[in-house]
Amino acid sequence: MVECFASSVLLLCLFSFSVLALASSPCPVTGLPVVRNISEIAQDNYGRTGLSHITVAGSLLHGMKEVEVWLQTFSPGTHTPIHRHSCEEVFIVLKGSGTLYLASDSHGRYPGKLEEHFIFPNSTFHIPVNDAHQLWNTNEYEDLQVLVIISRPPVKVYVLLLLPFSPCFILY
Amino acid sequence: MVECFASSVLLLCLFSFSVLALASSPCPVTGLPVVRNISEIAQDNYGRTGLSHITVAGSLLHGMKEVEVWLQTFSPGTHTPIHRHSCEEVFIVLKGSGTLYLASDSHGRYPGKLEEHFIFPNSTFHIPVNDAHQLWNTNEYEDLQVLVIISRPPVKVYVLLLLPFSPCFILY
Repeated sequence: MVECFASSVLLLCLFSFSVLALASSPCPVTGLPVVRNISEIAQDNYGRTGLSHITVAGSLLHGMKEVEVWLQTFSPGTHTPIHRHSCEEVFIVLKGSGTLYLASDSHGRYPGKLEEHFIFPNSTFHIPVNDAHQLWNTNEYEDLQVLVIISRPPVKVYVLLLLPFSPCFILY
Repeated sequence: MVECFASSVLLLCLFSFSVLALASSPCPVTGLPVVRNISEIAQDNYGRTGLSHITVAGSLLHGMKEVEVWLQTFSPGTHTPIHRHSCEEVFIVLKGSGTLYLASDSHGRYPGKLEEHFIFPNSTFHIPVNDAHQLWNTNEYEDLQVLVIISRPPVKVYVLLLLPFSPCFILY
């Protein structure tokens, strides 16, 4: 009985034989290499002067369905608009410093009270779903570089505009 | 008519007046600061010698529901088990080098063919849902440090054991 069991296990093992292949191969979904050099990924600024955006792992480029990862660099004085989106977002500050403006629980048409938070190298913060926020490189000498992680890709961003000569916002 | 419209807009603006607060405040969900210093977050090794794990943004610690971010460091020669999980996972190599073993499309009880990929500083790769994989610091001199992003937190890991004296696996 024991020998029979041992033979069965051995046969099972032989049938499920898995060889460690020595050669690297492209990702079957995208045709891109499985391991990619971030320095070689194309960057874009989406029409925003002072922004460099690299999609490290994305829905369109890499077939991601649940998370997306970006590397973004803001030159001194540049910033995102005040905006919100229906996804979670995590930031990790790699270089530089700046300011996060965050309106917690701002799910109505207008953002709530925007609070100011200092961000610095090796700091992290997350933006809850639909909370209005803005990132600003307030360091006049150094780039601000952040790693950004979002859920529910691709992201749909709602920008909140600060009307001229007044402290109120419209959504578009 | 124009004056009436202008007055209405002005009133609307006054009602939606949003002041930029100057003081930082704790996250209302967790009581932790909104911006956290990663260097000050507690690390753990979960019983695995040579591993340092920091939860940068997590479901239990920070109330994340859709993504989780870890910073993991593997000392020379250490590795994860061969495992899989029902979530997407993205890696970014911050320091060191090593080997990724990945069995694409290995959703059955046994992993498919494990392919070997060299990983290096500033490289990235992602693991599709349920693909068996293993990360190994094959650099005998330097730590391997990676940033790990997963969807669907908290993660439930299925470890695949390589049976002694045979190249087959069992799942537990």
